[in-house]
Amino acid sequence: MIVITSNKITEERIQEIIHTIEKQGVQAHVSKGEDRTVIGIIGKAEPQLAEHLRQMSGVEQVIKISKSYKLASRDFHPANTIIKIGDVEIGGDQLVIMGGPCAVETPAQINEIARLVKLAGGQILRGGAFKPRTGPYSFQGVGVEGLEMMAEAGKKHGLLTITEVMTPEYVDICAEHADILQIGTRNMQNFDLLRKLGTIQTPILLKRGFSSTYDELLNAAEYILAGGNPNVMLCERGIRTFETYTRNTLDLTAIPVLQQLSHLPVISDPSHGTGRRELVETMCKASVAAGANGLIVEMHTDPDNSMTGDGVQSLFPDQFANLLVDLEKLAPHFGKKFDTKKEPIPAGSWIK
Amino acid sequence: MIVITSNKITEERIQEIIHTIEKQGVQAHVSKGEDRTVIGIIGKAEPQLAEHLRQMSGVEQVIKISKSYKLASRDFHPANTIIKIGDVEIGGDQLVIMGGPCAVETPAQINEIARLVKLAGGQILRGGAFKPRTGPYSFQGVGVEGLEMMAEAGKKHGLLTITEVMTPEYVDICAEHADILQIGTRNMQNFDLLRKLGTIQTPILLKRGFSSTYDELLNAAEYILAGGNPNVMLCERGIRTFETYTRNTLDLTAIPVLQQLSHLPVISDPSHGTGRRELVETMCKASVAAGANGLIVEMHTDPDNSMTGDGVQSLFPDQFANLLVDLEKLAPHFGKKFDTKKEPIPAGSWIK
Amino acid sequence: MIVITSNKITEERIQEIIHTIEKQGVQAHVSKGEDRTVIGIIGKAEPQLAEHLRQMSGVEQVIKISKSYKLASRDFHPANTIIKIGDVEIGGDQLVIMGGPCAVETPAQINEIARLVKLAGGQILRGGAFKPRTGPYSFQGVGVEGLEMMAEAGKKHGLLTITEVMTPEYVDICAEHADILQIGTRNMQNFDLLRKLGTIQTPILLKRGFSSTYDELLNAAEYILAGGNPNVMLCERGIRTFETYTRNTLDLTAIPVLQQLSHLPVISDPSHGTGRRELVETMCKASVAAGANGLIVEMHTDPDNSMTGDGVQSLFPDQFANLLVDLEKLAPHFGKKFDTKKEPIPAGSWIK
Amino acid sequence: MIVITSNKITEERIQEIIHTIEKQGVQAHVSKGEDRTVIGIIGKAEPQLAEHLRQMSGVEQVIKISKSYKLASRDFHPANTIIKIGDVEIGGDQLVIMGGPCAVETPAQINEIARLVKLAGGQILRGGAFKPRTGPYSFQGVGVEGLEMMAEAGKKHGLLTITEVMTPEYVDICAEHADILQIGTRNMQNFDLLRKLGTIQTPILLKRGFSSTYDELLNAAEYILAGGNPNVMLCERGIRTFETYTRNTLDLTAIPVLQQLSHLPVISDPSHGTGRRELVETMCKASVAAGANGLIVEMHTDPDNSMTGDGVQSLFPDQFANLLVDLEKLAPHFGKKFDTKKEPIPAGSWIK
Repeated sequence: MIVITSNKITEERIQEIIHTIEKQGVQAHVSKGEDRTVIGIIGKAEPQLAEHLRQMSGVEQVIKISKSYKLASRDFHPANTIIKIGDVEIGGDQLVIMGGPCAVETPAQINEIARLVKLAGGQILRGGAFKPRTGPYSFQGVGVEGLEMMAEAGKKHGLLTITEVMTPEYVDICAEHADILQIGTRNMQNFDLLRKLGTIQTPILLKRGFSSTYDELLNAAEYILAGGNPNVMLCERGIRTFETYTRNTLDLTAIPVLQQLSHLPVISDPSHGTGRRELVETMCKASVAAGANGLIVEMHTDPDNSMTGDGVQSLFPDQFANLLVDLEKLAPHFGKKFDTKKEPIPAGSWIK
Repeated sequence: MIVITSNKITEERIQEIIHTIEKQGVQAHVSKGEDRTVIGIIGKAEPQLAEHLRQMSGVEQVIKISKSYKLASRDFHPANTIIKIGDVEIGGDQLVIMGGPCAVETPAQINEIARLVKLAGGQILRGGAFKPRTGPYSFQGVGVEGLEMMAEAGKKHGLLTITEVMTPEYVDICAEHADILQIGTRNMQNFDLLRKLGTIQTPILLKRGFSSTYDELLNAAEYILAGGNPNVMLCERGIRTFETYTRNTLDLTAIPVLQQLSHLPVISDPSHGTGRRELVETMCKASVAAGANGLIVEMHTDPDNSMTGDGVQSLFPDQFANLLVDLEKLAPHFGKKFDTKKEPIPAGSWIK
Repeated sequence: MIVITSNKITEERIQEIIHTIEKQGVQAHVSKGEDRTVIGIIGKAEPQLAEHLRQMSGVEQVIKISKSYKLASRDFHPANTIIKIGDVEIGGDQLVIMGGPCAVETPAQINEIARLVKLAGGQILRGGAFKPRTGPYSFQGVGVEGLEMMAEAGKKHGLLTITEVMTPEYVDICAEHADILQIGTRNMQNFDLLRKLGTIQTPILLKRGFSSTYDELLNAAEYILAGGNPNVMLCERGIRTFETYTRNTLDLTAIPVLQQLSHLPVISDPSHGTGRRELVETMCKASVAAGANGLIVEMHTDPDNSMTGDGVQSLFPDQFANLLVDLEKLAPHFGKKFDTKKEPIPAGSWIK
Repeated sequence: MIVITSNKITEERIQEIIHTIEKQGVQAHVSKGEDRTVIGIIGKAEPQLAEHLRQMSGVEQVIKISKSYKLASRDFHPANTIIKIGDVEIGGDQLVIMGGPCAVETPAQINEIARLVKLAGGQILRGGAFKPRTGPYSFQGVGVEGLEMMAEAGKKHGLLTITEVMTPEYVDICAEHADILQIGTRNMQNFDLLRKLGTIQTPILLKRGFSSTYDELLNAAEYILAGGNPNVMLCERGIRTFETYTRNTLDLTAIPVLQQLSHLPVISDPSHGTGRRELVETMCKASVAAGANGLIVEMHTDPDNSMTGDGVQSLFPDQFANLLVDLEKLAPHFGKKFDTKKEPIPAGSWIK
C-alpha cells in the first residue's frame, strides 16, 4: 500500500500519518519528493487501514498494491478450482453446457426441455422458479412448485439443475431442490444473501453485476468463500454500456482476466449478454474461444409464448443442438472436451 | 403500445399477432407501410402483453407508449406526495436536511453529531447501523445496537432518524427504531426487500441504483407503492460512468425529471454523488437549485478517523453549519423554506 | 511518479528500471516490500518517461502524481484566467450568457434572434454556420454565408458572437467573423484542429468530449495553450451514459472540479446536456449554483421549424428572457453579477 | 416513421402535424388511442422530416423504422463487400492479419518488423507515422518520413501497408504511400475528414469511436460511401465503460451485429481493445470465433522501449507467430482460410 500526501502537508501531519500506520504493526517507508511525500507500507496491514488513511486530511491518494480479496485470488490458490458434481467437473477440461428456459412454467414444459437438453448433450438444466423483474406487474415465477418440477425433470433425464435464489430465506429450500444456485446480476452485492451462501456447500454460480467491476465481482465471491463455501463459479453475463442495440454488452475479455486473477471457473451467458437470439450462437463460440469453462444458454420449446418475455433471446431446440455439435468440434482447440449425443433434433420434433 | 413487424412477415403471421392482441380484449389498428406493418394497440392491455409480443417471431420492435409504472406516475397522482413525520413535511415547501455520519460508531459519537445537526438546523439524523461493503473484511456496522444508539440520540435532540436496511428480515426491527428507512443503491432492485417494505407504513428513502435508469427507479418505487406503502421518497446519489475522478457522477437532471414523471419527493445525496468533501457544499447548493426537496449529507466530528473510511466525503460540523446558513438564503429562490438556528458552530467546538 | 513492479521481478531487472530512470537525470528511490518493489521518482521527468516505464516488462503499474498538463493547471497559474472581449469578461465576476439558435438559417432569423438575446440581457450570440451531423443526409449548415449573417446581426445589436469551427482549414475564416470559436464535443480530440487554434489569439470555447474525462479535457486545452493561445474556456455539455431519457447526462460536478484543477473559465451547456426544453431552465439555474462562469443556451423564434431538428431543446424567447430575470437574482449568491434589460419579452412578440 | 403525440394535443395541432407530413409527398396514417394519437408515415420521406417532426410541439416521440444510413446497410447491398488489394481480399473467405508497431520509429525498426510479419504469415503491415496523443507533450509520430519508411519496408517484404491519417490535408500524401488508410477512434466523427475520404478510392479502415453506437459507426461509414468511395472496412477496437482494468472493453458482439446490419468487412483490434499483452492472443482467437474478417495486432521487436508507450499491448514477434499458427487451425471452423509460412520465429531471433 502506498500513501501519497497532498503537496502542502506539514511535517507534523506526516508524522501523524506514520504513527497511524505503525500502530498497525507494519512499517512506513518514507520518500520525500519535491512536492509530495510518498509513504510505502511494508508488511501485512488490516484491510481497514487503507480506508482509514484515505480519509485522513493531508492524504491525497492511497494506492493498494495487494488485492482486497484473498481466497478468490490465484496468488492464494494457484491451481484451478474444479467443482465436481456427480460426473460433471466445472473448471477442469470439460466444457459444461447449462441449457433451459428462462422460467419454469409447467411440468410438461420443463420435462420436454430437459429431454431436449439431454438429447443435445447438455449436462445441466437451467430454469427459474423465482424471477427478478423490473416491475411488480410482470410474471414473477411459479415459486416453490417450480423448484419441484425442475428437480423432477432433471432427475428423470439425468441432468444436474441450476436455479436462481433471490433472498436469504429461500436459500435452504432452493439448495434442497437444485444442484447449483444462481445469484442474479442485481443480487451480486446483496451481502446478506452472499453471507448466507457461505454457510452451505452447494455450488454457486455468481453472476457479475451489470455495472460491477472485476474487482467487485471477486470481492463478492470472497464473501461466499470467506463464509466457508469454496464452490463458487463466476459468470459474465454482459454489462450496461451506452449501446442499446443489444440488451447488454457481453464483456468476453472478462473471461481471461478473471481466470488470471482467480482460480474460480468462469461461465459465459450469451443469452443475457446479447438479448437477441440471432447473436447467441456466435457469441457462444466466441466465449469458448475466450476460454470459458462453460455456457449458460436459454432454450425454449415455444419461445414465442414464454411467460417471461425472454423468448426473444432463447434458442429453438434444433439451434441449441446444432450449436452443441459445433462446440464439440471447437472445444479441443481450447483445451476442453465436450461430447454430444450425436443425435440430431429435427426442427419441430418437440412438443410445444 | 405499438408493434412494428419485420419486413418479410407473411399475412398469416400478421393475423396471428392481431389474434394475440385481441385475445386480451384490446383493439389492433393496422397500418401497412411499404416494408413493414405497424400495429397500434388501443385500450388498456395487461403489462405482460408487451413482453409476450416482443418475443413473437415476425415482431421487430414493441414500443410502449404508456409507462410500466402507475402508482408512481404523476399522470396517476398529479399532486405532489407530501410525507409528514411530526413537524417535518418532505415533498412540500420545506427544504429537508438529513445529516450525520456514514456509520453509527459509539453512543458518544452519534450523540455529539446529533447535537450538532440540530444546532445547525437539520431536521433528520442519518447514520448506518448495517453497512453494505464491497469486501467481507471491511467494517460492517455495529448492528442492532447502533439502531438503539441512534434512536436515543435522535430523541434526545429532537431529530427524526433515518437508517439503512439491507435485508427483509431486518425491516421490522429497523422500522421500530428509525423514522425513515433507507434502501441503498445496491438494493434498489432487491425485490424481496421492496415487497417487504410495501407491507409497512414507515417512510422509505429509495436510492437510485448506481447504474439504474429513471424508469427502473420508478418501477422499484412501484413495488413499494403497489404493496400498500405510499410513503416513498426517491434519492439521486450519483451514477457510475467512465469518469473516475469523482466517486460517482451526480446526475442532478434526475431531480427535475423525476419530479415531472412522478409525484414523489426527490432527495439529493452529494456526499456519495461526489465522494469528495471539497465538492459537497457546491453540489448541495446546485441540488437545491435543481429543485431537490431535501439533502442527505454526511457530517462527522472526526472524519479522519471514521470507521467506514467514508470520512473523505464527510463535512466537518462547521462546514455543515455554514452550508445550512447559505441554503437558508437560497431556498426561497426555489420555492422552499428552511430555518437555521442562527447559532454558529465554531471550528473545533465539538467533541471528537 | 511511482513505479510498482510485478511480484516476481529479478534484482537485475530492478536495476535496469532504475537505470532507465536515472538516465533521465532524475532520482530513483527504492522501497522493497515483501512481494513488490516500489520505486519513487524524485525530480522533474519528461512526460514520456511514464509511458516508457509502463511498457517495460517487470513493471506492473506506473502512477503519475503530477498532472500531465501544466499550463492548464491551477498549480501553474493560481489566479483565474479572465478573458476580456470588449466589455465582457469571462471568468471573472460577470455571469456570461450566450444565446441563440443551433444553426444560422437566414439573415432575418439570426437578426431577430440577436435582437431578442440583447433585449433579454445576453451578451453573446451563438449560432452554427457549419454543423457536425451524425449522418451525411442531415442539414449541414449554411456555411460561410452563415458566418457573415451572424457577424452582421451581432454588430447590429451590440453582441459578441460565437460559432463552431470543425476543421483546421476553416479556423481563419471563422476567426475573422466571430469573436469566439467553439470546438464541438466530437472534435475535442481533433489534435490538428487544436494545434491550429494554438496559433491564433481568438478565444476558444472547448467543449468536453461526450465521453472524455476531466483529465483529457484539460490535456486538450493544453494543446491550445501550449501553442500560444491563452484564451481558452472549458464547456461541460453532458456526457454519454446508460441513461437515454435525456440526450446526455449533464455532469455539473465538472464545474467545481475543473475550477479546482484549472484556472480557465467554465461554461455550462444545459441545452445539449439535457436535450429537452422542459429541463433547460432548471439546469441553467443549477449550473449557476454549481459555479459556472457562463451559460450557452439554445433559443429559437420558431423551434417547431428549426432546420437542424434541435428545436426540441431550444427555449422560446420569452422563456429565455424570464430565465435571465431569475438568473439576475440568483447570480449574487454565487459571487456573480448579471444585469438584464428589465424589459419583458411577451410571448408571441417576435417575428417567426 | 411513426409519430406519437403528447396526451393533451388538440385536434388542430394534429392537423398541423399531418399537414407537415403530407407536404413532403408522403402519407399520414392516423390511429387515435385513448390518450395519444399515433401517426404512421407511409412512403419515403426525406431524412430531415424526422428531425423536423421531433421538435414540433405536441410531438412526444418520433420513431424511425428505416435506418438513417443506406449505402452501408445490408438491405441495400445484400452481398458482402470484398475489398481486393493485390492478392488480398478483405471481406471474403480470407482471414486478414495486419501486424506491426504502434508507431514507425526508424527504417531499421520498421524493416525488421515487416520481415517478421511476413515470416509469420501476415499480409498487411501496420504502423503510425502520425499519432493522435491525449497530451501535447507525448511523442507525436515521425511524420511524413515515417510514411516513406513504411512504404519501403512493405514493398521490400511483399506486404500491403496501413497507416493512420488524422486530418483532411494529409489524406492525399498518406494515400500515396499506404495501401489502406486508418481512421482512429477519436476521428470517427471528424466529418470533414470523412468527406475527404469519400473523394478517393483508397480502402479505409474506420475505427469505431470509443463511445459510438453501431448506428453512429454505420452513419460515419455512410459519409465515405456517399462521397463515392465504396472501399470501407469497419473496426471494433473497444469501447469506454466503467471497467478500468482493461484499457477499453472489447465489444466482440459488434462483429456479428455489424455483419448483419451491413455488408462491409469487420476487423477486430484486440491490442487497443484490451491494452494488455497477456490478453491479446486470447481475444484474437475470440474475435475470429465471433466472425471477424481480420485482425489488426500490435507487434514490436522491443516493446520495452517503444516510443509511444504502447509496448504494453504489443506482442513479441514469437508470440505473434505462434498466434498465427493457432489461427490457421481455427480459421476453417469459421469459414475462413489462412496460411502461415510454417517457419517458426524463435524467441530472440530478431534485431531489437
